[in-house]
Amino acid sequence: MDFGINNFFDKKYKDSKIGHFQDLEHIDGLSISTISCGLYKEKRDDLVLFYFRDGATYANVYTQSRLVSENIKWNKKTNDKKVFGILINTRNANALTGKDGYNSLRKISLNLSKLLTSKQISDEDKPKEVKPSQILFACTGTIGEKFPENKILNNINNLVEKIKYTQNKLIWIKAALGIMTTDTKPKLSMAECKIGNSLVKIYGIAKGSGMIFPNMATTLGFIFTDANISSSILKKILSQNIKTTFNAVTCDGDTSTNDMVSIFSTGKANNKEIKSFKDPKLKQFIKSVHQVMLNLAKRVASDGEGATKFITIKCINSKTEKDAKNICFSIANSPLVKTAVFGQDPNWGRIVMAIGKSGAPVREEKLSLFMGSNIILNKGKLDKNYSENVFAEYMKNENIDITVDLSLGTKNFTAYTMDLSKEYIEINADYRS
Amino acid sequence: MDFGINNFFDKKYKDSKIGHFQDLEHIDGLSISTISCGLYKEKRDDLVLFYFRDGATYANVYTQSRLVSENIKWNKKTNDKKVFGILINTRNANALTGKDGYNSLRKISLNLSKLLTSKQISDEDKPKEVKPSQILFACTGTIGEKFPENKILNNINNLVEKIKYTQNKLIWIKAALGIMTTDTKPKLSMAECKIGNSLVKIYGIAKGSGMIFPNMATTLGFIFTDANISSSILKKILSQNIKTTFNAVTCDGDTSTNDMVSIFSTGKANNKEIKSFKDPKLKQFIKSVHQVMLNLAKRVASDGEGATKFITIKCINSKTEKDAKNICFSIANSPLVKTAVFGQDPNWGRIVMAIGKSGAPVREEKLSLFMGSNIILNKGKLDKNYSENVFAEYMKNENIDITVDLSLGTKNFTAYTMDLSKEYIEINADYRS
Repeated sequence: MDFGINNFFDKKYKDSKIGHFQDLEHIDGLSISTISCGLYKEKRDDLVLFYFRDGATYANVYTQSRLVSENIKWNKKTNDKKVFGILINTRNANALTGKDGYNSLRKISLNLSKLLTSKQISDEDKPKEVKPSQILFACTGTIGEKFPENKILNNINNLVEKIKYTQNKLIWIKAALGIMTTDTKPKLSMAECKIGNSLVKIYGIAKGSGMIFPNMATTLGFIFTDANISSSILKKILSQNIKTTFNAVTCDGDTSTNDMVSIFSTGKANNKEIKSFKDPKLKQFIKSVHQVMLNLAKRVASDGEGATKFITIKCINSKTEKDAKNICFSIANSPLVKTAVFGQDPNWGRIVMAIGKSGAPVREEKLSLFMGSNIILNKGKLDKNYSENVFAEYMKNENIDITVDLSLGTKNFTAYTMDLSKEYIEINADYRS
Repeated sequence: MDFGINNFFDKKYKDSKIGHFQDLEHIDGLSISTISCGLYKEKRDDLVLFYFRDGATYANVYTQSRLVSENIKWNKKTNDKKVFGILINTRNANALTGKDGYNSLRKISLNLSKLLTSKQISDEDKPKEVKPSQILFACTGTIGEKFPENKILNNINNLVEKIKYTQNKLIWIKAALGIMTTDTKPKLSMAECKIGNSLVKIYGIAKGSGMIFPNMATTLGFIFTDANISSSILKKILSQNIKTTFNAVTCDGDTSTNDMVSIFSTGKANNKEIKSFKDPKLKQFIKSVHQVMLNLAKRVASDGEGATKFITIKCINSKTEKDAKNICFSIANSPLVKTAVFGQDPNWGRIVMAIGKSGAPVREEKLSLFMGSNIILNKGKLDKNYSENVFAEYMKNENIDITVDLSLGTKNFTAYTMDLSKEYIEINADYRS
């Protein structure tokens, strides 16, 4: 607990833009172990195991990149009904490492599954055999470097020994810190709700856009719940919620080989089995998972490299959701918009430029633009009450809200991003100096 | 001739990356006038007229943005066989200015065409009437600001009085400087070739990615020739050549409301009329126009805001040209690749990331990557002779060549861009400070 924990209550971990994170406590059926196996020069945790003693139902979504890391190839092959754990390492992405990288995972899973099976035999009433394919992997870090198989293998014993059956907020923070690369803040979120009469917990951690020496824009998100829900329903919940949360966030438009968001259910809340995704008893649960995922996704954007501002971009009254999304991302990924926000510059012309270049249908005479509650463009014309001074004052806020009203339909989309600062360039260009 | 001309032979106008520009001389049938009408606070030329005494055949290509400036709307309505001039102003984009902006152009064209008709009557053997629709406009500068109609109208007399029938290199440089916004260097290029037995000239100027107070990433390019070629053939030549020149350049992935590239032929070279775009006599001419356009386009990238490096990205052996283009632009627009080049960092993982995110089909085991002549990835594996030191040394060059070999087909594409530096952020964020 040496990495950062002592500073935990320092203001550096608070995020004034999104709000301070909540305390996560125990989830039955889940155990956590966080250790250092020396992947970094400095002393810090770099290996985190989430272990499900009785297995967990699960679902994953992956990067859309055409080139994916070896651990994603591994995970995609898993088709067991339940998994027993996910092992997360930082510092090395295990991408473009070929068969060697894949074989490393095979060896580690073999070793880890054996140790976990032994642990089952010594600790559990009804010991279960853990198969290698029931271990998932998440990797984040440098691409193309040899995967540190031996360092990890040498520390697997220690990792399994340190498994904690009961979690408290410090254990969660230690795990959230252990998966960070260049994130400046751990990312945690939680919600509780009922399924029928059973109270269920939804806890999540994530890591964001760290692209420094470990040089990939990797987003990893892990959601844990004690709800009793099948993998197939979890899959639908994750697919639906990802669109407006992790997939609504962009830091610089770059996509990694390693992106992955997972959800795991231990089932210990013992709610009655849910047979269908459309069961009204699930409604509140789906909403709560969304809340946790959105909170984490916003933290990823807010802590994007060099970020000084958190930007929310809404496109409303579009003909299709796809058009609205295109416009949001065209604005969110525009270096000119992002540098203007960094410079606190009321430069609305750049937003209009980004709307135009999106390719989505726009009618100039119907287009309105708001910054916060200030109207700038009103149906294609500079609003008669527009005041550059008021607008300039607004741009000093830490949270910037941009709303584009197309007046072409009824569909909406919201995207989240951050500004583009000199620090981004420093982090990404100067790391070897 | 006060703006910059005295410094012309200073090294600041030389571009070591692309090579110093050539001297442009006289083109028969073309006249130039460059003046200041006070659009900027500082004293500099801001209004340039290219005037064709006997008219010129012409072709234009425009921005693909869904929101275009009023001058582009104006130009698109012109369907005369010949035009008599193009008026270029800086400082104001005449975009999102609505009917007022359009009406300003109407008034200016009315006034200018009258003055040019009077000039015809006093100067020419066979005076011609110049119609308002025979004047084209190019605007570049701030979006959404009221168009400075009066300042321009008040200086139209002066502009017409200063028309020079004969050009020399200083007049061309003055014109190239007069259309600049935040460009640091004027952009000029030339070529000569034969059509049949007639020697023809192809001259061009451009302005690039100036996005500071005049805040749009506007690219304007103007090509002039004395070749005798119809507008319909010019259109085909421009459409074909634009793909691999101006449309192969990106500075930051942003697209303006005002982009425009035009070609004008005075016909004074008196070559025999060409009836078809496929006429073999045109081959050398098409190639020479391409050469001029490519040279100008490269200068735009090389002088992109804050650029310290010029980057050429080739994708070879792709199944389709579209895939190759997607991959080139995915790399060229990646902030992570661009900051790595700025930082002289041999970070090839970011290039692989950009290839993967492009969405184009890639087979990891067939993918090779070269930096200059150094092979990095060889069929999906780090080449056995790879040396980070050699690669790091290569990254110190001013010109960086990235080649991606997909080994999936026979199609290729080449894109041009520059690095992303702290100065880009300074220019685009801090301009009001």
